[in-house]
Amino acid sequence: MARGNRVNEVKGKEPVNWESLASRIKKRIADNDPFFSLEFFPPRTEQGAANLIGRFDRMSQGGPLFIDITWHPAGDPGGDKITSSTKIAGTVSNYCGLETMLHMTCCKQSPETVNRHVEKTKSLGICNILALRGDADEDNWTFNENGFNYAVDLVKFIRKEYKDYFTICVAGYPNGHPDCSSYQEDLRHLKEKVDAGADFIITQLFFTAEEFLHFLSDCRKIGITCPIIPGIFPIQTNRSLVQLTKLSKLTIPDEIQKVIEPIKDNDAAIRNFGIDHATDLCRKLLDSGKVHGLHMYTLNLETATVQILKNLGLWSKTVPRPLPFQTSGNAERRANEEIRPIFWTDRPKSYIHRTIDWDEFPNGRWGDSASPAFGDLKDYHLFYLRSRTVKSKLRDQWGRELFSEQDVWKVFQNFITGHRNENGVKVTETPWCEDGLSAETNVLSEPLSKYNAIGVLTINSQPNVNGVPSTHPIFGWGDKGGYIFQKAYLEFFINKRYASALKKILPKYHPRVYYHMIDACGETDHTNADRNYPNAVTWGVFAGKEVLQPTVVDPISFIVWKDEAFALWTEKWAKIYEEGSASKQIIQDIAENYFLVNLVDNEFPNDNILWTVLDDMLATVADIKCNGSVTNGVAAQVNNSKELVQLNGDCSELNEATTKNGI
Amino acid sequence: MARGNRVNEVKGKEPVNWESLASRIKKRIADNDPFFSLEFFPPRTEQGAANLIGRFDRMSQGGPLFIDITWHPAGDPGGDKITSSTKIAGTVSNYCGLETMLHMTCCKQSPETVNRHVEKTKSLGICNILALRGDADEDNWTFNENGFNYAVDLVKFIRKEYKDYFTICVAGYPNGHPDCSSYQEDLRHLKEKVDAGADFIITQLFFTAEEFLHFLSDCRKIGITCPIIPGIFPIQTNRSLVQLTKLSKLTIPDEIQKVIEPIKDNDAAIRNFGIDHATDLCRKLLDSGKVHGLHMYTLNLETATVQILKNLGLWSKTVPRPLPFQTSGNAERRANEEIRPIFWTDRPKSYIHRTIDWDEFPNGRWGDSASPAFGDLKDYHLFYLRSRTVKSKLRDQWGRELFSEQDVWKVFQNFITGHRNENGVKVTETPWCEDGLSAETNVLSEPLSKYNAIGVLTINSQPNVNGVPSTHPIFGWGDKGGYIFQKAYLEFFINKRYASALKKILPKYHPRVYYHMIDACGETDHTNADRNYPNAVTWGVFAGKEVLQPTVVDPISFIVWKDEAFALWTEKWAKIYEEGSASKQIIQDIAENYFLVNLVDNEFPNDNILWTVLDDMLATVADIKCNGSVTNGVAAQVNNSKELVQLNGDCSELNEATTKNGI
Repeated sequence: MARGNRVNEVKGKEPVNWESLASRIKKRIADNDPFFSLEFFPPRTEQGAANLIGRFDRMSQGGPLFIDITWHPAGDPGGDKITSSTKIAGTVSNYCGLETMLHMTCCKQSPETVNRHVEKTKSLGICNILALRGDADEDNWTFNENGFNYAVDLVKFIRKEYKDYFTICVAGYPNGHPDCSSYQEDLRHLKEKVDAGADFIITQLFFTAEEFLHFLSDCRKIGITCPIIPGIFPIQTNRSLVQLTKLSKLTIPDEIQKVIEPIKDNDAAIRNFGIDHATDLCRKLLDSGKVHGLHMYTLNLETATVQILKNLGLWSKTVPRPLPFQTSGNAERRANEEIRPIFWTDRPKSYIHRTIDWDEFPNGRWGDSASPAFGDLKDYHLFYLRSRTVKSKLRDQWGRELFSEQDVWKVFQNFITGHRNENGVKVTETPWCEDGLSAETNVLSEPLSKYNAIGVLTINSQPNVNGVPSTHPIFGWGDKGGYIFQKAYLEFFINKRYASALKKILPKYHPRVYYHMIDACGETDHTNADRNYPNAVTWGVFAGKEVLQPTVVDPISFIVWKDEAFALWTEKWAKIYEEGSASKQIIQDIAENYFLVNLVDNEFPNDNILWTVLDDMLATVADIKCNGSVTNGVAAQVNNSKELVQLNGDCSELNEATTKNGI
Repeated sequence: MARGNRVNEVKGKEPVNWESLASRIKKRIADNDPFFSLEFFPPRTEQGAANLIGRFDRMSQGGPLFIDITWHPAGDPGGDKITSSTKIAGTVSNYCGLETMLHMTCCKQSPETVNRHVEKTKSLGICNILALRGDADEDNWTFNENGFNYAVDLVKFIRKEYKDYFTICVAGYPNGHPDCSSYQEDLRHLKEKVDAGADFIITQLFFTAEEFLHFLSDCRKIGITCPIIPGIFPIQTNRSLVQLTKLSKLTIPDEIQKVIEPIKDNDAAIRNFGIDHATDLCRKLLDSGKVHGLHMYTLNLETATVQILKNLGLWSKTVPRPLPFQTSGNAERRANEEIRPIFWTDRPKSYIHRTIDWDEFPNGRWGDSASPAFGDLKDYHLFYLRSRTVKSKLRDQWGRELFSEQDVWKVFQNFITGHRNENGVKVTETPWCEDGLSAETNVLSEPLSKYNAIGVLTINSQPNVNGVPSTHPIFGWGDKGGYIFQKAYLEFFINKRYASALKKILPKYHPRVYYHMIDACGETDHTNADRNYPNAVTWGVFAGKEVLQPTVVDPISFIVWKDEAFALWTEKWAKIYEEGSASKQIIQDIAENYFLVNLVDNEFPNDNILWTVLDDMLATVADIKCNGSVTNGVAAQVNNSKELVQLNGDCSELNEATTKNGI
């Protein structure tokens, strides 16, 4: 199967965003555009894995070209535990949306086992393998006539069986392989690996730029022409340094040993030294003009690596997004998924998880919310979706004890404003938005804060955008030179009284405003949209392309999302309180009685009318209450006397909001 | 097969624009939105058919709800001659893009024959049949136990075999069927036809409003509830009046006979009377509040019917277009074709013809120019594509004798400006644009006229448009409340020298300007576009929908179009001159040596840069010639000494153009 046709064969469509890692590396080198990659090892525990995934998300901000996951033979690397090498790599690729390379060893393994590993890697959408021999345990090792003896055998096997499906990387040893009799012999083995089909080389750690440059020159001399990327090991602790040099049979240079010895028990000092040392080393390499990429051995730690990359100016906070949502690193999915419902904007992992088994994105379009493959909510408590924050910290944010629904409204308001709450902490996440406020929401924070304060509990929003450049820092995505458009969007929970008022006034705004309003059980399900048609709410116009329309509001998938949105009240929020507590009851009451609403303003070139709609809703509620008169069946909805009493106290605030926000 | 699912079953996609005629009629009545339909009979000759098709195109401007084609038993109505009833109906539906109804008779025909006719009708994409008994020739007729005896048998047959695939219409007789023994018995037969499944009724001609309203009231009394549309017969000549009343066994009322008798040999006078009479009749019917639609017996004539409809205010010049191109009346195609290459904008019939056998518009998208089903040019000389203008008239427009290529340039300029040429006639068509200038091109006529004058022979163009309302008189299409966008587009023929200069300067404008430049034999084929991706150049954003992007510039289909575009020089233009003439040779030289170019300005929010590109091209050519210096291989291209001499005379004009048009 030729690489160029691969996605095509699978999907019957030309790949859109897919380009092999080998080709991307060559392009970056040709463009003199320096890059870096990050190596991690599989954590030992599930909690460690959860934390590591958070780290991947944060470190993806810096713009790594790829993430490299090591092969941990003792941890059942091809197995299904979340801590196995393949599982971690699959998570990075599919859920974190990062280009992923997986290490793989072959020595002392049967062809069947190796093939199973390669197959599994492929099935996870990973297209890059670092082919290694693995620990041979030389004393007990014997040459296996028909099996795998050296890394070159694995390279040959992958190339033979999978043609150019995979980008293959091999390891280079600036100081010779520890098991090899001589530096020259080791160079010859490296040449064999490249000749067998390896696309590029990553080196083992070294301590001086000269070591690497010497090695590089020797490689070129014997005809190794592929990219050679230096592996950079920032010294982070004395312990890890000693351990790694022992494994790689390297000697720590005296000048380093001398500095470290006196501070070896001072972790911070060692790390600072390590940062300075690695920064210097990298700068020399980059300045040589012969190095365009750096491979960072992170040791699963964040601070040192990020600091080094920042020092070098390689850490980028503004990676151009190919699409407005977090794309998948899975090659097939990335090539074919061009469209997503907006509802999962702040929960991309959940969306990916629920659609991961889709074997078809017809014509690259998201279009089958009715598919039985749209994952059930029962799969929802999976590892990836777990809250990474412990309950006590969540209680600090969301209220140690709740006395009324208004306490909940306040949490939403604090989340939007970033103000500290009564516990003196900032609300940095909500069940619907675990990664904090997006830049887009920030644009709207002033009006959002007002409406949240009075019970319009917003969980997703975007302003209207009328043709800003695709390089726009907040709204931009896709190629340079394009234009980005958005329809204003608002999604929120409201109580029954608000919902009744909203339902009453919405017909006035048809067809400008499309809406969908639903309760937890789906008994009430109002919309003015044609359920068969998604409404594109984000689109981009680019040179030489069809209009891309990656986010949509789709009535059918909204019903799928609804279950998740309501479940987050009970599964994430209610669960932080004790069984039978009043706090828990308040959250459960909201989950049972509130409505989930989305609004789209179709007239994107005009001022956002959604605030006017909300003001109109509030005015209608206020009329009913303040005048003491209730009309048009709204009376029947106002059946909660406690709410009515509370509302009396809010009347001036309601009116104030309506006045201030009127357009 | 249920109607609602029909297109769905065929295409695996929800229908987009398809709504049954029965349902559209009901909706227009419910909305109190009066409509009209036009009845034609198949012409006797091929030239008559060609003219009639031109008439369909013109009369479609008035916005008929549907076109009705009569069944002509003597003309092999189910056959494949262009003058047969089914062929004419198929042409109206597929090529003229109009909703079409076909009459069909059944009496004295075998079920096999009838089924063949219905199948053929279906295969042409026609969904509406007017079920008739046909001429029974009562004297020789005997009841056929297992066959078709009356129209009701045909209604039953169609409903049984095709469920609700077809909208079925039946005839009503305000004065009773000529073969029926009594008016009451005839009403009972009508009730039977409706009960058997007819969706609506069109009446035979009548002369007074009272006749129709009386009949309508009688129908309602016996429980006929479906729409009943009066058939309006404008008296156009004495001969046709006598003939028709004889056929329908009607008596011409005295008051009409009295008026007509003295003027019966004055066709104009009769027609004027007919217009006045029919206008009065229709006005009375519409004013009764009981009539919402009029069915016009046109007798294949245009003037009277159009005038009556204009008098009544029913003739609309501004029918909202569902898409920016002329859509097909073929139900399946209409429901699924949402996108077309821009190249055929002014030759929609050719495009439809060349793609008519496509059995798939994948996901409603045009996306398969590589399909082997993209009709060959060999099919091109088909009836539909024939020039409707006789050669002598074309010579008057395009030059009775040509002396140089500049004479040809002048033709293009005259076409754009609308000025009279040296023969005192206006150039109202070109081979690439048979229906005159579009309103869009008119917007650009000033710059286009200048560039055509100096040999940039434009055949297609559109200005950039940045979000005008979808109701815009020139650029609007689709539902109300939407926004329309366009990228500036220009397509033209230029000589080799211009092409060399253009090729030289175009890289400066990448990626803002996408281009494609090709010669007749395809030897030179330059583009900066990715050949796999169409570039959307017209799109619309509507409430509650995905972005519609109906016209694209597509590199692959451009190559298909290229053959047609070059062939039009030789097949349409060169052919008006005698074999061996100098005029013919000039056209053939152009066809062989010129380049076909298209340009797209991707930055639609900014001023159209394509004029700047042309000015740059002209300046480059002028530099080469005026300075006497030739650079960068352009010399090699300037191999036609005759052209060089001619160009010397143009130099000032070139420079002038560059100055005037500089942005």
